[in-house]
Amino acid sequence: MAEEIEAATAVYGAILAGGAGTRMGNPDKPKQFLMLGGKPVLVHTVEKFAISGLFDAILVLCPPDWVDQTRDLLRRYCECGSDAIVVPGGAKRNDTIMNAIGYIRDHLPVDEDSILVTHDAVRPFVTHRILQDNLRAARQHGACDTVMPATDTIVESQDGRMVDAIPARSILYQGQTPQTFRVLELGEVLGSLDEGELSSLTDACKAYVLRGRPVALVKGDSANMKITYPEDMRIAASLLGEAHA
Amino acid sequence: MAEEIEAATAVYGAILAGGAGTRMGNPDKPKQFLMLGGKPVLVHTVEKFAISGLFDAILVLCPPDWVDQTRDLLRRYCECGSDAIVVPGGAKRNDTIMNAIGYIRDHLPVDEDSILVTHDAVRPFVTHRILQDNLRAARQHGACDTVMPATDTIVESQDGRMVDAIPARSILYQGQTPQTFRVLELGEVLGSLDEGELSSLTDACKAYVLRGRPVALVKGDSANMKITYPEDMRIAASLLGEAHA
Repeated sequence: MAEEIEAATAVYGAILAGGAGTRMGNPDKPKQFLMLGGKPVLVHTVEKFAISGLFDAILVLCPPDWVDQTRDLLRRYCECGSDAIVVPGGAKRNDTIMNAIGYIRDHLPVDEDSILVTHDAVRPFVTHRILQDNLRAARQHGACDTVMPATDTIVESQDGRMVDAIPARSILYQGQTPQTFRVLELGEVLGSLDEGELSSLTDACKAYVLRGRPVALVKGDSANMKITYPEDMRIAASLLGEAHA
Repeated sequence: MAEEIEAATAVYGAILAGGAGTRMGNPDKPKQFLMLGGKPVLVHTVEKFAISGLFDAILVLCPPDWVDQTRDLLRRYCECGSDAIVVPGGAKRNDTIMNAIGYIRDHLPVDEDSILVTHDAVRPFVTHRILQDNLRAARQHGACDTVMPATDTIVESQDGRMVDAIPARSILYQGQTPQTFRVLELGEVLGSLDEGELSSLTDACKAYVLRGRPVALVKGDSANMKITYPEDMRIAASLLGEAHA
């Protein structure tokens, strides 16, 4: 595959399946591996990327001790003949992304225009439109984040006991993924963070904001949900049923 | 009922069903009137309040042209023999709350210790524990807001095109309801707002914050969802099925 890829137009996907999923109350089985409509959540997500036809290579970043099982699952369940590349993730989300960048640098054509679409494995309902809009926005602005206008009121509290502030909802968005970047710039930005910055970061777009670099907004979709809690699996099954109806 | 109520310990519920629900793509039928498991969403919510046994009176604030239908629906579907009082709502959420306070002042015993629990009609899965915690916190602190730790990354953007900031998620909470207050103090705080403040407010707790008054946090529940979008009705049906299982 790699020999056909032109670095200047290369688009890589990094599906982030590194989380331990302790919020699911099922620490032995990360939630990206739970079965949804006959195949693991992760496989649905990989298929969305593969079927889109937008990617020159798709990486799947999984916990280091799940590499073999992840390869097996993709081989067994992926209906699109996926040749997704399984790569061990890191301790935290940004370490995992750095592993993806490292793999691309070492094994795939890459230059300053090559694009990396990072996406949560536990968001299996990402749409073709969202992926396309990510590519367009990242090519134009260098980085983009997929968001929805906030439907909840957001409350700030430093101590978790009393409200400090309730910012105007009209300027707030709830983050989804993908988050999309130029591969080499992303490596440079993440590599420039010191330990304090790294520990305060929940995501890569925030690193761009910290460094004063532009991040464009891309409109997400209410169906592009994240499977976090056990009840989310029921919601996902319901959404899957409708998608197939 | 009113003659048995002691103002100092009075607890009133205001179920806010005033919304037009245009986000559901069904402007003729506000979403609080959609059927869920054989009865309107609103009726589920009223029943939660009635069954709790915590309230001296329950007001239902509905669109002015839905007063008669709301009374009919409560009579027809409410299994707990509800004597909820239907009161016309106002143009905006805080106007609706002011109508509730006005009704209480005119018709029910009230003093500075009387409590008003305000709640979205479209959150039918509020729990007894949440209601109790609201009463406790409002008695102690004067006001409280029901929230969940933010699970989404929150993104700030003034222009809706580029990211301005991504605040630390650890200090952010997603607001649910109930929001609970001392009745008379709430009327005083909302009455003190000028038009600019009123138009910038999405909820009553924010009015307290603007006036420097304390608002305590009460822990919500991921099941205490708000029915906003059409797909939320399917999620709600799934949650209802489990609650009855």
